[in-house]
Amino acid sequence: MQVVLDYLKKHQARFVAELCDYLRFPSVSAQPQHKKDLQACAAWLVNHARHIGLDARLCPTAGHPIVIAKTKRAKGSRKPHFMIYGHYDVQPPEPLDLWKSPPFTPRIQGRSIYARGSTDNKGQNFAHFKAVEAYLKTGTPLPCDLTFVIEGEEEVGSANLAKFLKTHRRELACDAVVVSDTGMPSPKHPSLTYSLRGIIAFEITLHGPSRDLHSGGFGGAVENPAMALARLLAQIRDANGRVTIPGFYDDVAPLSAFERRQFAHFPMKDRDLEKLLGVEKLFGERGFTPTEQRSARPTFEINGLTSGYQGHGSKTIVPAWARAKITCRLVPRQRPARIRKVVCDYITKICPPTVRLEIEAGHGAEAHLVSPQSREAQAALRALRSAFGCQPILLREGGSIPIVNDFKKILHADSLLLGLGLPDDNAHSPNEKFNLDCFAKGQAMSAHLWQELSRRS
Amino acid sequence: MQVVLDYLKKHQARFVAELCDYLRFPSVSAQPQHKKDLQACAAWLVNHARHIGLDARLCPTAGHPIVIAKTKRAKGSRKPHFMIYGHYDVQPPEPLDLWKSPPFTPRIQGRSIYARGSTDNKGQNFAHFKAVEAYLKTGTPLPCDLTFVIEGEEEVGSANLAKFLKTHRRELACDAVVVSDTGMPSPKHPSLTYSLRGIIAFEITLHGPSRDLHSGGFGGAVENPAMALARLLAQIRDANGRVTIPGFYDDVAPLSAFERRQFAHFPMKDRDLEKLLGVEKLFGERGFTPTEQRSARPTFEINGLTSGYQGHGSKTIVPAWARAKITCRLVPRQRPARIRKVVCDYITKICPPTVRLEIEAGHGAEAHLVSPQSREAQAALRALRSAFGCQPILLREGGSIPIVNDFKKILHADSLLLGLGLPDDNAHSPNEKFNLDCFAKGQAMSAHLWQELSRRS
Repeated sequence: MQVVLDYLKKHQARFVAELCDYLRFPSVSAQPQHKKDLQACAAWLVNHARHIGLDARLCPTAGHPIVIAKTKRAKGSRKPHFMIYGHYDVQPPEPLDLWKSPPFTPRIQGRSIYARGSTDNKGQNFAHFKAVEAYLKTGTPLPCDLTFVIEGEEEVGSANLAKFLKTHRRELACDAVVVSDTGMPSPKHPSLTYSLRGIIAFEITLHGPSRDLHSGGFGGAVENPAMALARLLAQIRDANGRVTIPGFYDDVAPLSAFERRQFAHFPMKDRDLEKLLGVEKLFGERGFTPTEQRSARPTFEINGLTSGYQGHGSKTIVPAWARAKITCRLVPRQRPARIRKVVCDYITKICPPTVRLEIEAGHGAEAHLVSPQSREAQAALRALRSAFGCQPILLREGGSIPIVNDFKKILHADSLLLGLGLPDDNAHSPNEKFNLDCFAKGQAMSAHLWQELSRRS
Repeated sequence: MQVVLDYLKKHQARFVAELCDYLRFPSVSAQPQHKKDLQACAAWLVNHARHIGLDARLCPTAGHPIVIAKTKRAKGSRKPHFMIYGHYDVQPPEPLDLWKSPPFTPRIQGRSIYARGSTDNKGQNFAHFKAVEAYLKTGTPLPCDLTFVIEGEEEVGSANLAKFLKTHRRELACDAVVVSDTGMPSPKHPSLTYSLRGIIAFEITLHGPSRDLHSGGFGGAVENPAMALARLLAQIRDANGRVTIPGFYDDVAPLSAFERRQFAHFPMKDRDLEKLLGVEKLFGERGFTPTEQRSARPTFEINGLTSGYQGHGSKTIVPAWARAKITCRLVPRQRPARIRKVVCDYITKICPPTVRLEIEAGHGAEAHLVSPQSREAQAALRALRSAFGCQPILLREGGSIPIVNDFKKILHADSLLLGLGLPDDNAHSPNEKFNLDCFAKGQAMSAHLWQELSRRS
C-alpha cells in the first residue's frame, strides 16, 4: 500500500498537467454548439483510461456519450465490485466578463487550479483515476473490481443515464457507488455526505401582446407581462423566507435532535458564510439555522428572469412576454411529482387572466439519504481519516445529485458521497477552482478506500 | 386662396414623383454607414426648397445637419411667424426580409406609397413644402412668415436640436410650431393632438451575493435578488392597475367632462384594439376607458427584466443581481423631477435590507398640453375641417415627443400637432407606407392653416 501512496506523491506534477488537458475541453452540456467538444472530451478520457491500464470505451446515448472504464477482471472474479461515478460535462461559463482568466484555459495560482469544471467535476473524478493508476502502475493488487461511469449530461439532468444503467444492469451490478461531487467545509473537515436535497426544475412564461408594443401608444391599456410575473412570483414566498404554496411542506419530516447536533458541528460561522457569499446578512426561513436552511429545508428559487429590452439605455416597450426559470430544492420524503403538482396548481390558480400562462417542466429528482452507521459509511470515514489525518464529519448537503436515486433503484446500490470541493470553489460561478491539496488527498483517500471497503470483517 | 388649392390639385402627380426622390435616400440616422446618405438627403432638400422659392441652407451640427428654409422676408415684416418642424432621418429598415419591396425603392400601390420614411416623416413634412410652393408659384401672398426646421436626428433622440434652437433663438422666435409627425385614427377623423404624455426612465438593480451562487449549496440561506425584485415590483401596482406609490397621482388633474366626451369620439372599439395588440382582453387602471388609460393616465411600466441564467434549459443558481428597466409615462402637471423623487423614495423605502439597491436615472420629459380652446388650436381645427371635409377630432396621445418641450422652453412657442399618419402606416415597422389622400389633404390643410392662423380676430 505504501508503494501506491509513494507513486501518488511522486507524480503530482504530471497529474496536474494532465488535469489541465482535461479542463481545456469546453464540455458545456447545456449549449448545443459544444456538442463536438463533449465528444472530444469523452474520447480523450477513454484514451487516458486505456493508457492507465483500464478497459475503456465510449458508449453513445441519445445525448452526450458515457465513458466506461473498468479494471481488468480475472475470469469468475468474486472480488467486491465498486462503481465510481462522475461527469465530464460542465456548467455554462457565462457571465464571461467576470472571469479573471479564460474559463477553459486552466490557471494555477497558489494551491488552486482555476477553470470551469475544475471542482465540478473533472478534478474530483480525475483523483480517482489517479489512485487506480497508482495501483496498476506499481503492480499492487486491487482488493476489488472497479468500474468508472463518467457521464456527459449531469449538468442538464442526466436524461440518458437511467436508461443506460438499466441496459447495463448486469455489467454495473455493484456493492456501492462512490461519488466525489460534493464538498467539505475545509481541508480540516473531510466529510461524508449522507443526505442530499432533491430538485424540480421548470420555467414559467407569461404571454401578453403578440409583440413588443410601444409603451407610449399602448402602455396603460394592456397588461405588462413583466409586472404580472413580478406579482405572481411575489405571492410564492413571504417575508419570513417561507414558501406560501399550500401543501409544499406537507411531507417534510421535522429535524431530529441528533441531526440538529450534527448541524451544530458544522464549522462555519454565520459571519464567515456572509463573507464567503459577499452579503451583508444571511436570509432564510425563520426558525432554522443557515446550515439547516441550505441543506435540510426545501426552497423555491428563481434562477433567471428574462423580459423585454436588456441592452444599454432604455427602450419604451410593453414586453410581449416575461419568463422566470425556477428550481425548488426538496428534502427526503418530498416526492418530486407531488411537489411539481402543488407548485403548478398554485401558479395556475394565482395567474391573472390578463396573461396566458405557459409552464415548461424540467428535470426532477428525489432527495437522498443513507445511514451514517452502515458498514460502507464507516469504511469511507476510515479512508477519509487516513488520507486527511483528522476526524471526518457527517454532512447533509443542499445540492442534488439525482442519479444517486437511480443507483439505488436500478442497481440497488447505496452511494458514498465523498466530496473534495471547498466552499469557496465557485462551482457554477465564475472563477471556479479546485484545491490541489484536495486533489492529492483525494487520490490518497481513493487509494485507502478500496482497501477499507473490501475488508471482510 | 382657390388658386392655391387649384395649383395643388393640378400638380399632385409631380409631387408624388418628387416625394419618391426624397424617399430614395437611405437616411438612417442610427447607422453610421449612412452618414453620407443623410448629408445627400439634406442637400437635396435644401436644393428643392430653393427651387420652390425659399431661402434655404444646410446647418452643420455635431451630428447630422439641420435644414433651414424660410420664406423671403420683407424688411421689418410684422407678419406672424410660424415654424414647421419635421425630420428627414428615418428608422433602420431592418428586418429587410419582411419588406414586400425594397425599403428605399418607393412603390405605389392603390392610394399608398410604400417606403421607409414615407409616413415618418418625409411624406408629412413634404406636404407642407408643397403647400408653400403653391403660394409662392401662384404669386399668392402668404399672410405670415414661415421657417422650416427639418432635422436629421429625430430617430436617435434629437441630441443636437436644443443647442441649435438656443443658438438660433432670435431667428426662430415664432408664434407657434406646426408639427405633422403624429397620426389620425382614419381619413374620416382628421385630428389635432393637443396633449402628449411625458416620461421618466430609470433602472433598478438589486444586488445580492457577490457572484451567482450554487442554489444547491447555498439556496435557502441567502436572499434571492430576483425574488426580492419581484416582491418589490409587485408592491408598485395593484390588481386594479393603479400605481400604489404615495404621491404618484397628486398632481394629475381629473379628466373633465369635455375631455371624456372627446375620448368617447375616438373611433376604435375595445375589440379592435384587442385584435390589433393580440391580447384576449385589455387591462388597465379601473375607472378609465382604454383610450383614456393609454393617453391621459400615468403609468409605471417595466420595459425589461434581467437576472441570472437566460439560456437553454436550467442553471441552478441564486443570481448575484436582478434588474428592471422602467419607464413611467406622465401626464400634464406631473413634474418629471418630482415623480422621479416619489418613485425612488418609495422604492428605497420598500426595498428589503437583504439586498443592496441601485437606481440609475435615465432621461425625462414633461408631458405636453395645449388648450384645445386656444386661438391656434381653433385655427388648426378649421384648417383640418376645410381640407378633409369633415369634423376633426381632438386627440390626446400616449407617446412623448420631447422636442415640443424644447420649443416651449427655448422658443416659448406652443406646438400644434397635426399628424397625417394612419394607424396601419407601419411607422418603425417593415412595409412603412403613407396614404396619398392624406398627402394631398395634408397639403390643403397646410394651405388653409396659414390663413387661419394669421386671421386677426
